[in-house]
Amino acid sequence: MKIKDKHYHTIWVKEDDAKVVQVIDQRLLPHQLVIHDINSPEEAAAAISDMVVRGAPLIGVTAAYGLYLACLRNPAEDQLKTVAIALKEARPTAVNLAWAVDTVMEELLQEEVGKRTDTALAAAERIKADDIEICRMIGVHGLELIRNLYQKKQRTINILTHCNAGWLATVDWGTATSPVYHAMQEGIPVHVWVDETRPRNQGANLTAYEMVQQGVPHTLIVDNTGGHLMQHGMVDLVIVGTDRTTAQGDVANKIGTYLKALAAKDNDVPFYVALPSSTIDWELKDGVKEIPIEQRSAEEVTHISGWANDQLQKVRLSPEGTPAANYGFDVTPARLVTELITERGICEASEEGLLSIFPERASANG
Amino acid sequence: MKIKDKHYHTIWVKEDDAKVVQVIDQRLLPHQLVIHDINSPEEAAAAISDMVVRGAPLIGVTAAYGLYLACLRNPAEDQLKTVAIALKEARPTAVNLAWAVDTVMEELLQEEVGKRTDTALAAAERIKADDIEICRMIGVHGLELIRNLYQKKQRTINILTHCNAGWLATVDWGTATSPVYHAMQEGIPVHVWVDETRPRNQGANLTAYEMVQQGVPHTLIVDNTGGHLMQHGMVDLVIVGTDRTTAQGDVANKIGTYLKALAAKDNDVPFYVALPSSTIDWELKDGVKEIPIEQRSAEEVTHISGWANDQLQKVRLSPEGTPAANYGFDVTPARLVTELITERGICEASEEGLLSIFPERASANG
Repeated sequence: MKIKDKHYHTIWVKEDDAKVVQVIDQRLLPHQLVIHDINSPEEAAAAISDMVVRGAPLIGVTAAYGLYLACLRNPAEDQLKTVAIALKEARPTAVNLAWAVDTVMEELLQEEVGKRTDTALAAAERIKADDIEICRMIGVHGLELIRNLYQKKQRTINILTHCNAGWLATVDWGTATSPVYHAMQEGIPVHVWVDETRPRNQGANLTAYEMVQQGVPHTLIVDNTGGHLMQHGMVDLVIVGTDRTTAQGDVANKIGTYLKALAAKDNDVPFYVALPSSTIDWELKDGVKEIPIEQRSAEEVTHISGWANDQLQKVRLSPEGTPAANYGFDVTPARLVTELITERGICEASEEGLLSIFPERASANG
Repeated sequence: MKIKDKHYHTIWVKEDDAKVVQVIDQRLLPHQLVIHDINSPEEAAAAISDMVVRGAPLIGVTAAYGLYLACLRNPAEDQLKTVAIALKEARPTAVNLAWAVDTVMEELLQEEVGKRTDTALAAAERIKADDIEICRMIGVHGLELIRNLYQKKQRTINILTHCNAGWLATVDWGTATSPVYHAMQEGIPVHVWVDETRPRNQGANLTAYEMVQQGVPHTLIVDNTGGHLMQHGMVDLVIVGTDRTTAQGDVANKIGTYLKALAAKDNDVPFYVALPSSTIDWELKDGVKEIPIEQRSAEEVTHISGWANDQLQKVRLSPEGTPAANYGFDVTPARLVTELITERGICEASEEGLLSIFPERASANG
């Protein structure tokens, strides 16, 4: 997607120096655009753990490039295995990260040592290209929903989203944002309500930034606002992402998603979840009971960072002596989800719905 | 209530100088406790408009004291009328403010000029005392709910609240907090989940501060969190305040209240609204349709203030070029409200419920 009218991916091999991988440093967005050089597998792991890059798809791709950098330095098996462990430990709960590392490692260890660097680069480029295509197809399918609404209503379509399931969390297009960008390209008038998404404010920091750069009409709101908007007919549909989806269609997404799903249900607003099928955990059924919810640092609640005097500044919001709890995600039960948008198409949020477009899972589970 | 173990009201006449009214400066809470002197009716109006004091009950009392200060200077009718207009314009949407000014003015203009200062002081003291008693009685009635839950569950009772309907919004006790403080006094173990309440963070700034000072066990959460807590049985009841209540029991309260009510309904958590009967607008029926929702400055969404380097600092959260919308309130329909807690007792959130404890309204409306 575009930043300052130039096309970017979130990660790429440096144009004039193939020993360097470059990423957009997401810690300073939306305030400063800084391109961050990754020169070694250790720097790749640090970029993941320090959240220079974030978003499940993107950290998987970053780890794959980390293995390429490892091969450049020393493609011996013991060296690569050490790097693989370090990369996986950079964000231990990220399922995608472990998957990407394991996939590339399997290919590398089957390859003779002298060809491993080329193989690693090809694998990283392939994982990257696959992610772009998956996100593009989510957009192609999601576009139909927006097009249908537009044909019916013949006015700007108002879409509410929570957190950042945007292109900055992937390589390009994003998941929840991909239908919006496709609608823009088709000339359908859209307007996006951007939930700021406390405590880490990925909506205010990243989704709003994406919208500014793509020229998508949008309005930032606090997380408390969506219900009021829906009561007054100001939201035509909700599209959010998901970090983990159960075989029955429950979705674990950024904390607060469940509240928006309740409001959508109460006001007959369609509530869609956009997801690459890699987020589906086919072993899980009841999301509320079975998905463990990560608790993060209390300081993300008691403090906040923003821009002042040309730098990021952290300020304290609450009194000393006040403890805080910081649950990262909540689970939205499938009964509140209108449909799921995947790279294979759109389906009901249920076991039958998912198996209708992923029939190969029926035999695997049966 | 207590601050640093000393008993305070939010407003009082200065002990050794009856020409000065003092208030707690709420702009610097929770970071600094500053007592603010009000020396003239103009300073009273400024304290209201600059939000040195806030909360419907408290600004009404402040305006009453403002008329006392006006009498001290010059009790002539034309002088008082000018002051009355200025006080009402300090927060034009506050129903309570206009009511307090009109009530005191009516008494003053019936009084001979030489006795007006004493009459004004007595009226202000009476309005203040009435507010304390109303809040105390809300607590006495609400305590029963908490006591019943405790007798049933025999463990700490977890109460979620949104915004600050605490003693800092009134003179003493608060509305939503009054049952909590009464439960504490009775020795019932309670724990309060404090919604931070973006955009102005009255939960993180004021409710959390009240809890710290009263020694109430509490945990600060972002506004997105309540649904997750209720899904997992971590909330026994919700108590919130209201700015305006319709004759059918719909309540307009701080934006985001509706989302918590939906989550409470979805998880069978009792949802109570505590209110002085002065917030009931007997002319209104359907809150969602009839209550106008104030829009405030976008800067409250795009920026936030917090404490750093021993001072309040404002930082920018969102990218330049991102517009923001800031709806101050939302309406929770009566169907989502378990019951209303008033100074007269607890009733169903419905016309019949309200008339059962305010029977004098039946003939007035009939």
